[in-house]
Amino acid sequence: MTAKHIPYKIYLSEEEMPKAWYNVKAHMKTQHPPFLNPATQKPCTRDDLAAVFCDACIEQELNETDERIAIPQGILDFYRMFRPSPLVRAYYLEQLLDTPAEIYYKFEGNNTSGSHKLNSAAAQAFYAKEQGLTSITTETGAGQWGTALAMAAAFYGLHLDVYMVKVSAEQKPYRREVIRTYGANVIPSPSDTTAAGRKILREFPGTGGSLGCAISEAVEKAVSTPGCRYVLGSVLDHVLLHQSVIGLESKAALEKHGLRPDIVIGCMGGGSNFGGLIAPFMGEKLDGKNEIDFIGVEPASCPSLTRGKYVYDFCDSAKITPLAKMYTLGCGFMPSASHAGGLRYHGMSPVISQLYHDGFLRAVALEQTRVFDAAVKFAKCEGILPAPESAHAICAAMDEALRCKREGKKKVILFGLTGTGYFDLAAYKQYNDHTMTDTIPTDADLEKGFASIPDFPVNQGLL
Amino acid sequence: MTAKHIPYKIYLSEEEMPKAWYNVKAHMKTQHPPFLNPATQKPCTRDDLAAVFCDACIEQELNETDERIAIPQGILDFYRMFRPSPLVRAYYLEQLLDTPAEIYYKFEGNNTSGSHKLNSAAAQAFYAKEQGLTSITTETGAGQWGTALAMAAAFYGLHLDVYMVKVSAEQKPYRREVIRTYGANVIPSPSDTTAAGRKILREFPGTGGSLGCAISEAVEKAVSTPGCRYVLGSVLDHVLLHQSVIGLESKAALEKHGLRPDIVIGCMGGGSNFGGLIAPFMGEKLDGKNEIDFIGVEPASCPSLTRGKYVYDFCDSAKITPLAKMYTLGCGFMPSASHAGGLRYHGMSPVISQLYHDGFLRAVALEQTRVFDAAVKFAKCEGILPAPESAHAICAAMDEALRCKREGKKKVILFGLTGTGYFDLAAYKQYNDHTMTDTIPTDADLEKGFASIPDFPVNQGLL
Repeated sequence: MTAKHIPYKIYLSEEEMPKAWYNVKAHMKTQHPPFLNPATQKPCTRDDLAAVFCDACIEQELNETDERIAIPQGILDFYRMFRPSPLVRAYYLEQLLDTPAEIYYKFEGNNTSGSHKLNSAAAQAFYAKEQGLTSITTETGAGQWGTALAMAAAFYGLHLDVYMVKVSAEQKPYRREVIRTYGANVIPSPSDTTAAGRKILREFPGTGGSLGCAISEAVEKAVSTPGCRYVLGSVLDHVLLHQSVIGLESKAALEKHGLRPDIVIGCMGGGSNFGGLIAPFMGEKLDGKNEIDFIGVEPASCPSLTRGKYVYDFCDSAKITPLAKMYTLGCGFMPSASHAGGLRYHGMSPVISQLYHDGFLRAVALEQTRVFDAAVKFAKCEGILPAPESAHAICAAMDEALRCKREGKKKVILFGLTGTGYFDLAAYKQYNDHTMTDTIPTDADLEKGFASIPDFPVNQGLL
Repeated sequence: MTAKHIPYKIYLSEEEMPKAWYNVKAHMKTQHPPFLNPATQKPCTRDDLAAVFCDACIEQELNETDERIAIPQGILDFYRMFRPSPLVRAYYLEQLLDTPAEIYYKFEGNNTSGSHKLNSAAAQAFYAKEQGLTSITTETGAGQWGTALAMAAAFYGLHLDVYMVKVSAEQKPYRREVIRTYGANVIPSPSDTTAAGRKILREFPGTGGSLGCAISEAVEKAVSTPGCRYVLGSVLDHVLLHQSVIGLESKAALEKHGLRPDIVIGCMGGGSNFGGLIAPFMGEKLDGKNEIDFIGVEPASCPSLTRGKYVYDFCDSAKITPLAKMYTLGCGFMPSASHAGGLRYHGMSPVISQLYHDGFLRAVALEQTRVFDAAVKFAKCEGILPAPESAHAICAAMDEALRCKREGKKKVILFGLTGTGYFDLAAYKQYNDHTMTDTIPTDADLEKGFASIPDFPVNQGLL
């Protein structure tokens, strides 16, 4: 039997694209504990959630039994504009590293939002429209999520208010402009359009804002506006569910060529990309059908899995959201300035947290300059300029490929390349100018963050 | 026989990708007149050209007989990183326009350079390397060509000096940064690294530079550096040849579904994209095998085909290049500031000029605000934020589709979507802010440009 030639890029046909998402929770013997209402410290009811989120998303959030959840035709109609994404055999990276490993990456950057975020934006905007809503709100920091949701809102005909962290809106005027071009309303936060914003402005005149504040404004606007709901781009189970198209397509593309990965690697911020990429592979592992080494990669500046605690914490720094059981650095943890804005989240998806806690995946934390070294090497040999977030996965994949070389092992490595770095060139400039630094929190920094974890009874036996 | 479903995106497989370029000149009964050496006003010899350009490119430039010119494996190895590009059925644009026409676009923006320019950059860098050269030079204005060449130079291991118009380098620091990230040396022009640059700096201290000046510096650097040549991104026949992969892939993808275009539309600056897109279709038309309506689209602010003269002119404003017989507004013509930087060229490819002169294609000129109206409509329904240059083709395609609607005709329209607008958001901001204007040259403006056309004997019977 001769080895079959594997093309540089593997595309599924339109017919081969997944018609259902993959709900990894259907395979988890231990589910993550429920969200708690901070007022009662009791599990959130559907009604608690329905004031904030779309009904269909809440159903998905709470579904622990169905492995497959059909993707409505109206979402498939949107997906076909930018999906399937290519699965690329990194022939040139293998050559550069002189490794016996085969390296594959799933590239989610070939759409105008520039990242995988569009997979969930499409779904959530569709469901909002289907529910008869007329508008949605969200927050955005770096702007990838805001762009993705603006594209989806334009496609489905929904009004969208994006609360964009003021300092980001000023530092990234072009990100703001893409969002505006798609017809969304960009409001630098804090603003005078909400009580939460006005309060912050009174207390801290001239503040540049924060993601926590932008979330507060977006949620307030949603719950106080008829026919409006709030939409979130990561962390929650239904967002991971939507992102499972990444893993499903990757798996189908590999299987077309008789391949199975030995190692699957993704970067982790809130966990939606990593959770989506690993979903169908993890489902098999949970059933004892494979022994894949799953590696989540986080920045050393914001090491929620590798150095965080597994407790109930708020999802936002303003402490207005439900409590989630997750690995967290504390909702008051302030990560140092780094260029991977999408990975600067204090917590981690409850699903990923539970799987990590149960030993089904491992995590590594990487320093920024090493990550950019990898990014530039990759850009030069594979052509794609990666987002700083995605470059964390590239760097870890290169580490694993070099380990294969040392150990003489021919493994199949799959990693997720979540997006492009076209709006991150200030970061690359710092790298090119050799002025980039690494800032890793000290134990004392972490203790300060942990002090912000709520001291509710539910946590008292755990801390 | 039932109508076959046409997928949203048609991808060729790696095996189906073109293995040879298409040289439309092999089908032209009338070849364009040769380049002239301005010193002698006699046709350029190979030696004239060999001091400036790579040998293989000169061979291609002068080849009028071979329809197919094989693409070396070393270039195919690079092409497979970003090719094939998708041919997209614009279902949602058709729906928006409620047209009986079928609209297809060939999308060349899914690579880090953001445009089709990489097709020729790859070829020219490969040939430079194969010739044993160690470095290449070029100029760049908006930066797409500079980015493409930097990517190709990194891949093949060549040193690259990019003379970037100083005002562009300052206004587009991120474009500059992508080029630097790929390891190229960016020199804001005019610079003190060349005699031409020093002369300009003495005469006009504080100038922001011009494309003409950057060309002069890049050519001087190339001819004065051992093992170095100059590389150009458009206008020349060999560049159009390399871009024929666009047309070949489009034709193959359409034929897979039994389709033939009735109308083919592309934007035109120097003509490389349009020339590449139409090449194999035009070859058939020249042989009397089809009656396709070819439409080149130029900005009303720089209307070289629709309002220019067909004469010998310099290719650059500094008057140091060979003379080309082409439609031109005069090498001294200064187009008004517009956002389609890639279309602000005073002349037009000699091949396109000859075909236009002989009646094989037509040209339309569009105003900037109409073009941006079309761009934003397209972005919202098809998902892709187009480059301002590419939006010219979109706008013309929409015009033709609406004409089909009025006339009740079900035509097949193919247009070239050359690139993305991620680095053009200052332009979109102007559009979103309603501060964009149209500037169309008056007849007096044109007369000023025509006055810069050289008064050599060769032109005296023609003007």
